[in-house]
Amino acid sequence: MMSRIVFHYHVAGEPGEIAARAEALLLEQTVELSRAAAADDWVRKNIIGEVLSIEPRESGGFAVTIAQPIRTTALDPAQFLNVAFGNSSLQPDVRLAGIEPPDEFFNTFKGPRFGADALREKLGAFGRALTATALKPMGLPAVKLASLAYAFAVAGIDVIKDDHGLADHDFCPFEQRVELCQRAVAKANAETGGRTIYAPNLIGSPASVHRQFAFAREAGVGAVLLAPMLVGPALLHELASLAALPIIAHPAFGGSEWIAPEVLFGDVFKWFGADASIYPHLGGRFSYSRETCLSLAARLNSSARGLKPAFPVPAGGIKTSRVREVLSSYGVNTMLLVGGSLLESGEVIQRTKDFVAEVVSVSKDLAS
Amino acid sequence: MMSRIVFHYHVAGEPGEIAARAEALLLEQTVELSRAAAADDWVRKNIIGEVLSIEPRESGGFAVTIAQPIRTTALDPAQFLNVAFGNSSLQPDVRLAGIEPPDEFFNTFKGPRFGADALREKLGAFGRALTATALKPMGLPAVKLASLAYAFAVAGIDVIKDDHGLADHDFCPFEQRVELCQRAVAKANAETGGRTIYAPNLIGSPASVHRQFAFAREAGVGAVLLAPMLVGPALLHELASLAALPIIAHPAFGGSEWIAPEVLFGDVFKWFGADASIYPHLGGRFSYSRETCLSLAARLNSSARGLKPAFPVPAGGIKTSRVREVLSSYGVNTMLLVGGSLLESGEVIQRTKDFVAEVVSVSKDLAS
Repeated sequence: MMSRIVFHYHVAGEPGEIAARAEALLLEQTVELSRAAAADDWVRKNIIGEVLSIEPRESGGFAVTIAQPIRTTALDPAQFLNVAFGNSSLQPDVRLAGIEPPDEFFNTFKGPRFGADALREKLGAFGRALTATALKPMGLPAVKLASLAYAFAVAGIDVIKDDHGLADHDFCPFEQRVELCQRAVAKANAETGGRTIYAPNLIGSPASVHRQFAFAREAGVGAVLLAPMLVGPALLHELASLAALPIIAHPAFGGSEWIAPEVLFGDVFKWFGADASIYPHLGGRFSYSRETCLSLAARLNSSARGLKPAFPVPAGGIKTSRVREVLSSYGVNTMLLVGGSLLESGEVIQRTKDFVAEVVSVSKDLAS
Repeated sequence: MMSRIVFHYHVAGEPGEIAARAEALLLEQTVELSRAAAADDWVRKNIIGEVLSIEPRESGGFAVTIAQPIRTTALDPAQFLNVAFGNSSLQPDVRLAGIEPPDEFFNTFKGPRFGADALREKLGAFGRALTATALKPMGLPAVKLASLAYAFAVAGIDVIKDDHGLADHDFCPFEQRVELCQRAVAKANAETGGRTIYAPNLIGSPASVHRQFAFAREAGVGAVLLAPMLVGPALLHELASLAALPIIAHPAFGGSEWIAPEVLFGDVFKWFGADASIYPHLGGRFSYSRETCLSLAARLNSSARGLKPAFPVPAGGIKTSRVREVLSSYGVNTMLLVGGSLLESGEVIQRTKDFVAEVVSVSKDLAS
């Protein structure tokens, strides 16, 4: 039996038409021809997959499950997405709801190269949730962002990432920012004995991102931030394959209601190598359901299929006052990202210390 | 006055809440902070944009127009998309409906490096629509695809592209396919005096795509096919900047109902350097409206802002019987892509000749 990858779709439509629609979906992802026109024997046996099931959904429409031969993906990240949801993504009646790759897939897509345990080692942070924040707003010069990074690090936060909108701007050039912020964090660490890490945002064309990655590595940063949908999801796979620095994935430009968020930010980003994956927690500026958020986190936390666990990073307008509520949902294997809420008054260091203390305290309660 | 880029969004919501929603949308794309927290004077004056208008739409919801300082985009392709629709793409109540960049933008985003006129020169095809087809299905070995390419070229088609699902598969390796297909097309051209070009599909991580591009160029192909949303839209910009080969963009993985198709496949792909852009014509296997298709084509055909016109490439299950109808809509500055319909019987050469003759004949009628 040839190794197959199973895709789950949610498809709108009428009962009388769904069988034909499922067949069309099956063929659209690979041969892009009718069965009659795709008449080659080898193609029929080795390329054309199979509709495994069509079930009505309670909320309307149908759950369509399709198996495609793994060889159609060429075990390439871009072609894998193409077979999963290339042309069909253009059709408004279908959503990609799940992907079940065979074991063979994970020989190529090895997931996090560092993973949650290595991040904990790096940070010296065990048995508790991690804390993270963002350098913002876009528009501050590098020297001001570095001051902010210093304040966050002195207050004992684990991870300081650039806001994902910090690019190679004329008012805050990438190299200057990385040098100053990394130096500020190292200075704070030296003073406090802490192990805060700084993760600059890499953004641009692939060649620019590679240059930024090399520069950041040379500067001694502890991780990098990358928005795979903006820079190209296959670039995440390419950078992770270098196994040089932990990668925190950002969901920007990920779209809504086309690929289930738990699949894109939970499964795909992890398979492509994210060591941590940021997503909008419910109740902030975004609208994911509790079920979606928990499913997303569980996929990242999982060590199934021989992959290292990654950190779920709930974010998106979480207030410091919500630490207990959020961690009670997720447990301690979480990196809690609070950005704007720490900047709402001038008391950045104190607010950050309070946030860190609250995470430590809630983590203890959860463990007991 | 600082140069600004204007974004048009369609936003669902209630009249009493739309002003606050528009303000949130404005801030989400850049500072990701409330105005109160983004208190730096320089940031307020130079980074935070402006909600220009909020108008109710006939079909419900609101048209929200926002101006952002061009400097927020860092004139970088990935960061431009981030400012256009990074975080907000995750929110289901908003769609990106239009983008109006200032002139300054086009100093960096130069559009097609070859464009429609250079493609016509290359093909010796003037005053008529162009014809294109696809090598398929995935699963045929390179030698069979090359035979098919030979048949299409002998029949006088202008452009033969790989199906966008042809990757670097074990059963049809990229380099072998490119060599055999290019050789087959060159042989046919030598025999007929024709000028058919072959455009292989580049797909993979950025490093793989660059290797494929270099190999294809060395092999003498006339153009390449690229699905920017699969390989990363910034990679289109990067490859186009080499100005080495015309690039035909494919819409796969472009999603539906989040960015208006005429904006993504008409504007953005053209600005990033596509010389031709494929999109699903109405009435095939996809569902774009006539208005969307014509708007998309008009944007590609345009020579506004100093950009070279690109070819619109309507596709997606068009039957040869629809040539007159389709060209009557678009006119002759169109590359008509017919794939499966030419393969439905064994008479590939004859069907292709008929298709080519019909395009020539309809083009003459349209010109008279």
